[in-house]
Amino acid sequence: MQRLLLIGFGNVAQELVRILDDHTLFPHFNPQQFVVTGIATRTRGNVYNPEGLILKRLLPLFNEQNRFAESLPEYFPGSAQALVGEAEYDVLIELSTLNLSEKSQSAIGYIRTALERKKHVVTANKGPLVFAYQQLKSLAEQNRRAFLFESTVMDGTPVFNLKRYALRSVEITGFQGVLNSTTNFLLAQMEKGLNVEEALAKARALKIVEADPRNDLDGWDAAVKTAALCNVFFNQSIDLQSIERDTFDLVNPQTVIEDARQNKRWKFICSASRENGTVKARVRLQRLDQKHPFFAVSGTSSVLRIEARGLAPLTIVQENPTITDTAFGVINDLLQILENWK
Amino acid sequence: MQRLLLIGFGNVAQELVRILDDHTLFPHFNPQQFVVTGIATRTRGNVYNPEGLILKRLLPLFNEQNRFAESLPEYFPGSAQALVGEAEYDVLIELSTLNLSEKSQSAIGYIRTALERKKHVVTANKGPLVFAYQQLKSLAEQNRRAFLFESTVMDGTPVFNLKRYALRSVEITGFQGVLNSTTNFLLAQMEKGLNVEEALAKARALKIVEADPRNDLDGWDAAVKTAALCNVFFNQSIDLQSIERDTFDLVNPQTVIEDARQNKRWKFICSASRENGTVKARVRLQRLDQKHPFFAVSGTSSVLRIEARGLAPLTIVQENPTITDTAFGVINDLLQILENWK
Repeated sequence: MQRLLLIGFGNVAQELVRILDDHTLFPHFNPQQFVVTGIATRTRGNVYNPEGLILKRLLPLFNEQNRFAESLPEYFPGSAQALVGEAEYDVLIELSTLNLSEKSQSAIGYIRTALERKKHVVTANKGPLVFAYQQLKSLAEQNRRAFLFESTVMDGTPVFNLKRYALRSVEITGFQGVLNSTTNFLLAQMEKGLNVEEALAKARALKIVEADPRNDLDGWDAAVKTAALCNVFFNQSIDLQSIERDTFDLVNPQTVIEDARQNKRWKFICSASRENGTVKARVRLQRLDQKHPFFAVSGTSSVLRIEARGLAPLTIVQENPTITDTAFGVINDLLQILENWK
Repeated sequence: MQRLLLIGFGNVAQELVRILDDHTLFPHFNPQQFVVTGIATRTRGNVYNPEGLILKRLLPLFNEQNRFAESLPEYFPGSAQALVGEAEYDVLIELSTLNLSEKSQSAIGYIRTALERKKHVVTANKGPLVFAYQQLKSLAEQNRRAFLFESTVMDGTPVFNLKRYALRSVEITGFQGVLNSTTNFLLAQMEKGLNVEEALAKARALKIVEADPRNDLDGWDAAVKTAALCNVFFNQSIDLQSIERDTFDLVNPQTVIEDARQNKRWKFICSASRENGTVKARVRLQRLDQKHPFFAVSGTSSVLRIEARGLAPLTIVQENPTITDTAFGVINDLLQILENWK
């Protein structure tokens, strides 16, 4: 049995807890293998019970009060850092949101502490991969623990597992992808004639855009995902600022409509290549014709094409994922830990 | 170090031997981990040396004489079955060609013998998966040995590794794919105005069609791949005859040309679904429009879309593979064995 400590209790964490509590979606999955001993949130209280939390009871209470109330017997008055450093658990599940302004130092600190305590780590947070991949990877290896992160890019689509298990000994030389589904969705709406504001309103209604959409529109989300892939695929410590970014301001609504009539679509393409040890990466607004393999990738779908020395390029597409896909990426990482550290 | 016994010495086996001998293509791959102790062919002689064969010497000799000559010191006068049953090796690499008329009984026999002798098995032959998957899987489990087969479908594209490592505990409910590249290539040529004979001549020049193309044209190759996927994905013993097959005779050359002008393409789509334990599978000629995710899959590329309960569909595309991709699938299986049976 693995004891889990959750940092962050947003959509992914709550979906994860739902799957751990009710596994009918994945009939071969046995949730009895896991118990959650603690949950830490940034501003909504922490809970901890070394014997295991009763999720079925806690989740409705959290949703009613929109926090873990201090009156709960499981309430933990200390900080998230205190939980990570002192609690009993086997796997830290780091699900806090990306914080660019502090370069994810809090999340990196949690992960460092957990690995130093010889705990495994699973994260769905891109920040640690962008700002500390090499450091955390080495720390995990030194302590012989897992540092896994399938849900960081493409909502649980198995891109890192593909590299790890299916491209053994292979040198990845480049990749291209549509990785920011918000801008891809907006462009598809604009093909139909909506203006930017209307498209944004529709995206908000579907909850696929943040309150402040600048992170997506300025290409930061795409650049962060590109950086995470570069670091893992090329074993690098890339500088996020070195990634060229086209922003949504470059989109010409009239051109998008006219080109759509000619079976051409505009998309933000993330790409990177490595030659002689040098990595070039960028996020670029590009016009694709219908023969392009990314042409049909629309809605909130995403795609990644991987080039490797000696092999045919492989492309993987995920169609309109839900929060379950992201939570499943975490579950798959947990099952990998169970298998490899019996 | 793993000792390998090869059954079959066609294109895939020879490429495998080339990679084992010269690994510059995969810089992280260490061929010193492997030694080939025996190679068996159907009609071109067998060689065996329990200390390991010198591939660099044998491969040119084989190519000069188009067989392993009896004068070679390594020449093995016995049968392939005798080698499998008596030779010293750790992994049987079964690369003989699919034999539908005998329902792959020879290949299945080799694999059974190897597993009973507690050897691992890697195969690129679809037959054993179609005609004896359950039996061989159980035998491997009983003997705690690997039975791996990544190169059987889609030339080494990681479809089985995807299921094994990235869809843990997941129930696959269906799949669709373009799995026969010969017919897909022929249809693409016909869109450009070639007739069937001209398209076939072009395919022959590129060596992507057998001397007798009926296996491809009658849909058997596609049906066999569909059956292999059904057996592994759904854990079944499907009857190959139960798979509905459209044949190439249904293709109307004039319609193909006219539809191509309207941005529509005809393709043979393999598909299967499982509902309440019942599997339905077929190979069907279908007309796709440009929004279909398989529209852009042309040349000798192939594609597979996997549907799983609770998750967004995943699609994997391999672009114009070479024989190196198929051989790499075998290498990847070998590396998996090395990792899991240290």
